Amino acid sequence: MTLSLSAAKSYRQPWPGLIEAYREYLPVSETTPVVTLLEGNTPLIPVPAIAQRIGRQVRVFVKYDGLNPTGSFKDRGMTMAITKAKEAGAKAVICASTGNTSAAAAAYAKRGGMSAFVLIPDGYVALGKLAQALVYGAEVLAIKGNFDQALEIVRDMAENYPITLVNSVNPYRLEGQKTAAFEIVDVLGDAPDWLCIPVGNAGNISAYWMGFCQYHQAGKCDRLPKMMGFQAAGAAPLVHGQPVANPETIATAIRIGNPASWELAIAAQSASQGSFRAVTDAEILDAYRLLAASEGIFCEPASAASVAGLLQVKDQIPTGATVVCVLTGNGLKDPDTAIKHNQSQFKQGIPAELKAVAEAMGF
Amino acid sequence: MTLSLSAAKSYRQPWPGLIEAYREYLPVSETTPVVTLLEGNTPLIPVPAIAQRIGRQVRVFVKYDGLNPTGSFKDRGMTMAITKAKEAGAKAVICASTGNTSAAAAAYAKRGGMSAFVLIPDGYVALGKLAQALVYGAEVLAIKGNFDQALEIVRDMAENYPITLVNSVNPYRLEGQKTAAFEIVDVLGDAPDWLCIPVGNAGNISAYWMGFCQYHQAGKCDRLPKMMGFQAAGAAPLVHGQPVANPETIATAIRIGNPASWELAIAAQSASQGSFRAVTDAEILDAYRLLAASEGIFCEPASAASVAGLLQVKDQIPTGATVVCVLTGNGLKDPDTAIKHNQSQFKQGIPAELKAVAEAMGF
Repeated sequence: MTLSLSAAKSYRQPWPGLIEAYREYLPVSETTPVVTLLEGNTPLIPVPAIAQRIGRQVRVFVKYDGLNPTGSFKDRGMTMAITKAKEAGAKAVICASTGNTSAAAAAYAKRGGMSAFVLIPDGYVALGKLAQALVYGAEVLAIKGNFDQALEIVRDMAENYPITLVNSVNPYRLEGQKTAAFEIVDVLGDAPDWLCIPVGNAGNISAYWMGFCQYHQAGKCDRLPKMMGFQAAGAAPLVHGQPVANPETIATAIRIGNPASWELAIAAQSASQGSFRAVTDAEILDAYRLLAASEGIFCEPASAASVAGLLQVKDQIPTGATVVCVLTGNGLKDPDTAIKHNQSQFKQGIPAELKAVAEAMGF
Repeated sequence: MTLSLSAAKSYRQPWPGLIEAYREYLPVSETTPVVTLLEGNTPLIPVPAIAQRIGRQVRVFVKYDGLNPTGSFKDRGMTMAITKAKEAGAKAVICASTGNTSAAAAAYAKRGGMSAFVLIPDGYVALGKLAQALVYGAEVLAIKGNFDQALEIVRDMAENYPITLVNSVNPYRLEGQKTAAFEIVDVLGDAPDWLCIPVGNAGNISAYWMGFCQYHQAGKCDRLPKMMGFQAAGAAPLVHGQPVANPETIATAIRIGNPASWELAIAAQSASQGSFRAVTDAEILDAYRLLAASEGIFCEPASAASVAGLLQVKDQIPTGATVVCVLTGNGLKDPDTAIKHNQSQFKQGIPAELKAVAEAMGF
């Protein structure tokens, strides 16, 4: 792929992190102590094999946010949330999360010289998912209760003790996340026609819409994208119009039955004339493998929901349209799924001889 | 951290991948079919907690190459190697590797529409390390032999069949890897005083030196850094001056007893008046935890050797010097080490009540 460059050397200006880059659009002042790991500025990668499946000159890109410092889009919101916590004098932050949020919260809190506490339900045994929070030095507390109780307790903690809540109810999270929309417009020169995005807690679709609208108001883009939100079929409250009691899907990062940003997400879908749709786990895994084995891009299963959704509705895309699919997390976050659900050949017991190996390779 | 920006918006020019960005320094022509995942342009992150341990106004940065598309610096070499393979008309590539090389080879080969074959010794059970190669769609072949035999066979395969070898003997690998030195100079405005780097197969230290020298010749930097190569104590052939028969270290990515780029690495060390030193696994793990829990940066154990080494020789650093430590891989590549070797608190069985949780948190 070749991108033309308007000015030599200009791309060598170092990226200062998303708060510095988009300071004028964010609630910071000259004296705000910015806590950054130089997050953002993630690549917008053309995916020609996926575009070919659609045809009709449709251009498709993925916004690969798994290349943020802790491996997910959560870093965008966390640099803002932790920066504002530090500005307010907080010495500690807390969240209830077993996944990407806890990793980002721990990394940014420690970066900012604060303590990080992570509350999880007891008996939660998949230690691998907590590896990052632990290595970043968070203190992890497992309660004898479920996830809803953990959420309730962290809210109470933040109300009653000098500790800042950085769960998705923290308003600065969406402020940071909206910068991904800015970056897409800055690269494409305008907003895409369609924005396809996985929807779990529904914060990210709301943040993207906020970003596109703000940039539109500022004259940075001429159009606004159709917001296409894709949920896992077993966890699709926005598709069904009601909460799901026991959400189930392989895409754990979007396994949410009652999204926190429900109203905002509906507003984005409605205003943009987009829609919410469900994709099955089988469709998600197909898209996950297609991205890895055809495009060379390894994402979390949840991320692949955006591409699965795009392929599901590909006949509705206008000819020649530009589509961006958001890949929210790095595939390295979930090696188990990669091992269980790849379709590669793994041949063992081959004699250590040239001829035998050549034969095994099909020569 | 605040970086001043010389021109508004200039950093929003999209990064085109390292071959396009540094095309004039690389063996490509106008007609070369560039195979890219927009690798490179990884952040150079200030690490104030580490700088503080040194004091004397020494500035320390880490080059966080774990944020490349497949999670390691290998992508830099692989975009070049696969691009040149494609230019030569190759339909398949092969390598012997159980780690980062196989991941990068598979991703770029599939991106370029080629097949990827990975040879490993049989009985190699750590499937997790192969998760990436498998998900990217490589064909993995396990031979009844050791790693040296695998290397010999892939060389023979490349000589006798229409298949390109992308192991470190492929000369284009170092060409791509040298661009990391360019990026450092482009951000700092000059070369650092010291470049601290983990040394295993010794290709990367050779590539960095090549990059700094080329940029110096081109007038892009005024000085050349002292090249400080750090090996794991149990796998330190360049320190001891002779191959190590059974290399052993927790830092698997640099567990190499007989480096392929031995001569080049010695030349870099000698010309730059640098040195090779050994760091123990304990020192590596200390640096690994320090990076994560104080700076918010999660790297592979092998990567932390650069910081471990810097701290070992900190009294030798000139006052006010600028030091860059290379972090070669993403910590997510090795979650097991993160779980085994963190020093975080993990408290279980806490009653689901505000007071109990507050108490557990020390309030």
